[in-house]
Amino acid sequence: MTEVVILGAGNVAFHLFKAFSKAENTRVIQVYNHRKESLKYFEEHTDTTSNISDLKPAYFYLLALKDDVIYEISENLKDIPGIALHTSGAVSIKTLERLDNFGVFYPLQTFSKNKSVDFAEIPVCIEANSAKNLGKIKKLALEITKDVREIDSEQRKALHLAAVFVNNFSNHLYTIGAEICEKNQVDFSILKPLIKETASKIESLSPEAAQTGPAIRNDQKTIEAHLALLSKNHKDIYSLLTQSIQHFHGKKL
Amino acid sequence: MTEVVILGAGNVAFHLFKAFSKAENTRVIQVYNHRKESLKYFEEHTDTTSNISDLKPAYFYLLALKDDVIYEISENLKDIPGIALHTSGAVSIKTLERLDNFGVFYPLQTFSKNKSVDFAEIPVCIEANSAKNLGKIKKLALEITKDVREIDSEQRKALHLAAVFVNNFSNHLYTIGAEICEKNQVDFSILKPLIKETASKIESLSPEAAQTGPAIRNDQKTIEAHLALLSKNHKDIYSLLTQSIQHFHGKKL
Repeated sequence: MTEVVILGAGNVAFHLFKAFSKAENTRVIQVYNHRKESLKYFEEHTDTTSNISDLKPAYFYLLALKDDVIYEISENLKDIPGIALHTSGAVSIKTLERLDNFGVFYPLQTFSKNKSVDFAEIPVCIEANSAKNLGKIKKLALEITKDVREIDSEQRKALHLAAVFVNNFSNHLYTIGAEICEKNQVDFSILKPLIKETASKIESLSPEAAQTGPAIRNDQKTIEAHLALLSKNHKDIYSLLTQSIQHFHGKKL
Repeated sequence: MTEVVILGAGNVAFHLFKAFSKAENTRVIQVYNHRKESLKYFEEHTDTTSNISDLKPAYFYLLALKDDVIYEISENLKDIPGIALHTSGAVSIKTLERLDNFGVFYPLQTFSKNKSVDFAEIPVCIEANSAKNLGKIKKLALEITKDVREIDSEQRKALHLAAVFVNNFSNHLYTIGAEICEKNQVDFSILKPLIKETASKIESLSPEAAQTGPAIRNDQKTIEAHLALLSKNHKDIYSLLTQSIQHFHGKKL
């Protein structure tokens, strides 16, 4: 049995806790958070602490913390026995270099408390301070996912950025779609099959090959009709993305 | 049996042809296209013609044509016996008003030739010149989908615009994600589970509630780090969408 301690009580901590609790060969023996109130859910399932000096000995310490406290918290992990892993997309592995055994365990997924996920399908990006630790981290990751990838800090930073485009920004485009529906008394649910198909299309086509619409067709009549319907803010987004599609696909405006 | 003639040989025509061919109570008795070469696939399955004066009598004529030829082609449909339906998101029903029986049959989905779709899940937006014809069109639509909605021309135009945001523009954000991956020697497949989850999240959460990321957290440090990694074109998109998220969610820059 591989004992794991989780630091943090946010969405990533919550989903890692659930995944490691379900896994065959791992056990979450403790969850730490500086605010006791946030530990309520975890208290029902394992030991918890809000005192960073009270961490139990374990094989792994998963720092599912806000980016800007990882360095500070790591100061308290100098004497722990296991490997300290942060779970951030944007923070370099070097942030933990004052420790003896450290690495990165970055699950590339969007987590919300009220939405369950199938962890087995989530790519986990790993990095370590030594080949030996990399092997151990890989074994840990394989307990909860089929998809483990060695990704260095530079690549991870780029991936985190790419994730903002495909996840945060796409979701905001859904929000704009919902706003347009609402304004025209149409139920937003009508767009859901299209959204689903847009995402599932790239399983069989590259996004480049999957591109359709007035921008890539250079259909000026439709583009102008669309612009006339939009508010200032949405008009700017429409123009910029239309331009970017035409630029990428080699058509000049 | 309800006989249907399809005009057009593009992606929408192709998928409508497949759906109506499979449906229990409909039969596609003819496909028209002005270019004979484009009829090759259809020739193997039904009658075809490239002569607009040779249309067979049918209950429905589906005009799966480019927006700007719908009006022109409809001139040739004045003496047909059935109901003429265009399939466009952007064209008003009035475009067909010189005919006796007409309407709109707009499947709200993205179609590519090489990607099969489950038509039963696709919302079909219908509109008609009379209540009687609306009933007939609804019955036709129910042959191939579970999801039929009465949508007027103004609403349909807005939906077509919303579709550009959630489909065309989202897909372009995937393309940018793929570019960033390629530039950093990371396989784009790593982003696919995230893209899938982003789309499936809105089945249980509104896109507004599903929003995450540095923009909504107003995480300036991450935003600046991301901007520093981007090319000019992508930087503009990042800034504008970040601003739009913050504006929508009520945070001032």
